[in-house]
Amino acid sequence: MVESTSAATSHRASEILSSARTMCDPLLREAVSSLPEPLCRMGGYHFGWWDAEGTATLQPGGKALRPALTICAAVACGATPRVALAAAAAVELIHNFTLLHDDIMDVDQIRRGRPAVWTIWGVPDAMLLGDALHSLAARVLVTGLPGRTATAAIAKLESAVIEMCHGQHKDCRSRSAGPIDVEEYARMAMGKTGALMGCACALGAVCAQAERPTVTAMDTFGRELGMAFQFVDDLIGIWGDPKVSGKPASDLARHTMSLPVVSALGSGTAAAAELATMYRRDPDSMDTARATALVESAGGRESTERLADGRVRAAIAALADPVAAADLVVLAGMVSRRNH
Amino acid sequence: MVESTSAATSHRASEILSSARTMCDPLLREAVSSLPEPLCRMGGYHFGWWDAEGTATLQPGGKALRPALTICAAVACGATPRVALAAAAAVELIHNFTLLHDDIMDVDQIRRGRPAVWTIWGVPDAMLLGDALHSLAARVLVTGLPGRTATAAIAKLESAVIEMCHGQHKDCRSRSAGPIDVEEYARMAMGKTGALMGCACALGAVCAQAERPTVTAMDTFGRELGMAFQFVDDLIGIWGDPKVSGKPASDLARHTMSLPVVSALGSGTAAAAELATMYRRDPDSMDTARATALVESAGGRESTERLADGRVRAAIAALADPVAAADLVVLAGMVSRRNH
Repeated sequence: MVESTSAATSHRASEILSSARTMCDPLLREAVSSLPEPLCRMGGYHFGWWDAEGTATLQPGGKALRPALTICAAVACGATPRVALAAAAAVELIHNFTLLHDDIMDVDQIRRGRPAVWTIWGVPDAMLLGDALHSLAARVLVTGLPGRTATAAIAKLESAVIEMCHGQHKDCRSRSAGPIDVEEYARMAMGKTGALMGCACALGAVCAQAERPTVTAMDTFGRELGMAFQFVDDLIGIWGDPKVSGKPASDLARHTMSLPVVSALGSGTAAAAELATMYRRDPDSMDTARATALVESAGGRESTERLADGRVRAAIAALADPVAAADLVVLAGMVSRRNH
Repeated sequence: MVESTSAATSHRASEILSSARTMCDPLLREAVSSLPEPLCRMGGYHFGWWDAEGTATLQPGGKALRPALTICAAVACGATPRVALAAAAAVELIHNFTLLHDDIMDVDQIRRGRPAVWTIWGVPDAMLLGDALHSLAARVLVTGLPGRTATAAIAKLESAVIEMCHGQHKDCRSRSAGPIDVEEYARMAMGKTGALMGCACALGAVCAQAERPTVTAMDTFGRELGMAFQFVDDLIGIWGDPKVSGKPASDLARHTMSLPVVSALGSGTAAAAELATMYRRDPDSMDTARATALVESAGGRESTERLADGRVRAAIAALADPVAAADLVVLAGMVSRRNH
């Protein structure tokens, strides 16, 4: 019974995401198509609509989780999906602008299983495309929303961007500045992932003309869910199937300071000490299988699963009316169980 | 008589710029101070308010030409400077966001006579600061302007950013793709410099609640002036005094394809052929004095001066009421005569 419920919920989550993608796609394509060449072509490539030459592909794009959150939050507040589409598209544009810039900073060569934009067009053009998507997001809001809703939405979205910049700064710094603890990691993840998911949900409520406490509750739901998403992402980065996740190699092979590692290193165990020694050596000499076993035996996997689970519970607890927000609860369940 | 008029005009231009800087400074400082550390400190360093450790300096910041254009355009449309301050600050934030990103792309190590932000804090942090200033610009508009004015201003400002991204793309491309002609150069300069100066003036008119034809005329004025500004900048890049301009070396030493060079290369003269040969060689072996003489004898200097002059005339001709816009005319005169 539990399993069939879970299968039904998982099916419903796919439906929600697919429907959000279908609803937002025209707005996103219209926005990206308004860019001058070659930014337009680069944008369509990045979103997975066409290849580097501009030929249409059947590549799957992003999951559209953030647009789905915006739409479902609006619906949970009693509005139709339609009122939230511009906000959903704007959030997705911001998400993709930060992916473009983060891939440059992190020297990540693969994005969604394909070469990242900067590896094809170079760093300057990828920076410029990111800047242009940032602009498009604001423009989509002012053209797609009524005046006062647009200005409220822009204030929230730009504040989220500033939080994300701060989170990404901390993330870059943590790679060079040595070990951080679980609390510091959580603050960084809140900026990098929580802020925009919180904003996605809050904007749904703003578009539905919800009262301020509801907007705040939606923001909290999205932030907690964003943290859970990041923690699960960290689990996938070590124990996920690269063929499914599209991630080229284990996070451990690159000495990434993800939550399971941070948590393992802070465990005070013999495994932690051995892992710390391995992390001080050249990444090229990394024995990934051994490191994985050490993270697991130091409790890094279990504690990350527990923390992710706690964040999902906190997210759902923040909802004023979980029944009206049933689709948000479904998405929260998907985040905690996803494997890619 | 002509000289004393010119001196009086030059004095008046300094007053206009200084007054614009004084009026905008509190808004800019408030915006940058709202950033989390270390973005706040980096921002204050970039604006010239303090050194890299955060200690206040007496460094001169930027010229504040764009904020002055916004304020003077509003005044020319019958408004008080106050109504345009948020727009003036937003334009200056956008200008500085693009400087931060351009310096990374162009590997420019010096900005306003000091080490560029990326040379001190690294490329990722400089990218993030640029992204954050972009967000601040939109936030300053929604918090500082009445609803409908704010949304109109954001639409214009973000469109200008997209044009600037396109212009910077062309500029980067022109360095690797070989010679371009004067028309292509002008299109690139319109994106890189004209778009934001046009937007600065248009926003002044928007804040003054001017009619659409007035907004368009102000946009044209600013765009033409921006082109003149870029052309004069190109002259300074070769014949200016590095001590005054803050530019470390002649554009020719770096093989920059500025307008005097593009114009000289297209002249069909023997000097053009010799210059082309020099530009194909390693920049380290560049005889800058010889190249400067070649650009001059191929007519590159004279034609650039003529083109700049033509753009200033076109700018002033676009003004519906040059008497009401006297301060804009003064600024136009300053742009055509400036030497830094």
